[in-house]
Amino acid sequence: MFGKMNTAEIEQLLRQQLVGRIGCHVDGLTYVVPVSYAYDGDYIYCHTHEGMKINMMRKNPDVCFEIDSAWNYSNWQSVIGWGSFEELAEGPERTQAIAVLRERKLPMLSSETMHLGLLWPFHSGERDVDGIIFRIQLKEKTGRYETTTAEPFFAT
Amino acid sequence: MFGKMNTAEIEQLLRQQLVGRIGCHVDGLTYVVPVSYAYDGDYIYCHTHEGMKINMMRKNPDVCFEIDSAWNYSNWQSVIGWGSFEELAEGPERTQAIAVLRERKLPMLSSETMHLGLLWPFHSGERDVDGIIFRIQLKEKTGRYETTTAEPFFAT
Repeated sequence: MFGKMNTAEIEQLLRQQLVGRIGCHVDGLTYVVPVSYAYDGDYIYCHTHEGMKINMMRKNPDVCFEIDSAWNYSNWQSVIGWGSFEELAEGPERTQAIAVLRERKLPMLSSETMHLGLLWPFHSGERDVDGIIFRIQLKEKTGRYETTTAEPFFAT
Repeated sequence: MFGKMNTAEIEQLLRQQLVGRIGCHVDGLTYVVPVSYAYDGDYIYCHTHEGMKINMMRKNPDVCFEIDSAWNYSNWQSVIGWGSFEELAEGPERTQAIAVLRERKLPMLSSETMHLGLLWPFHSGERDVDGIIFRIQLKEKTGRYETTTAEPFFAT
């Protein structure tokens, strides 16, 4: 059975998933790139460094954001949304974004990462981090699922 | 440690994964959509029905294809490629595509799906199936990984 996810189901999947994909487009080239993210109900927040996706989104901030969760071929959910890329310079909005990213990411770090004490910026208790912080406000969101059970498959 | 995947590693991940994401773009709109696929070393093959992604790819066949596999935030692989969408009308190329899809998908079907005998087209022994079969030949492929162990994390 195929279905459309309602708003609550879409919000739940956006809060549960850890990795999404940004689709951007400049000069005839479409680029789909995975990102780890945090979602606070208003914005998708990401931390990254200079590179192809940032260069492209600076040129064309209209992006697509996708997440999916599949248990098998016939039990899956996906959310697709559209919004605008916004790079956050130092200031209250960047500080808020870092707080959301830190709260989401720190508990999910692997024991290896923690043990190795890698230079992952969110380990630090500093207010700011190195690198680029950006956000995407999803102005439109759609969600679909397929299920073989009475209840839709929901990711946990 | 971050790294670039070599050709063998890229091919391995393309054969291992079951779900990828197509990025397409028409008239200022970028769309990223998850698809189940099969890969034979030459083409990405997909089965679908009429809808937004097919309409967009018919208008602009230049697409991006992405797969990723993450064990955690610091151990992941991803492959991103670019190619052209080709819809396969009845004929030897469509028959070959269906054979590749059937070989890949049938062993991966859930026991629920099998038990329910759902109308999934690849269950049938027929040579053709309902719906649209298309392929993407990836003309360019890149792969990246991050690992916290001596060896890159490779999906199994």
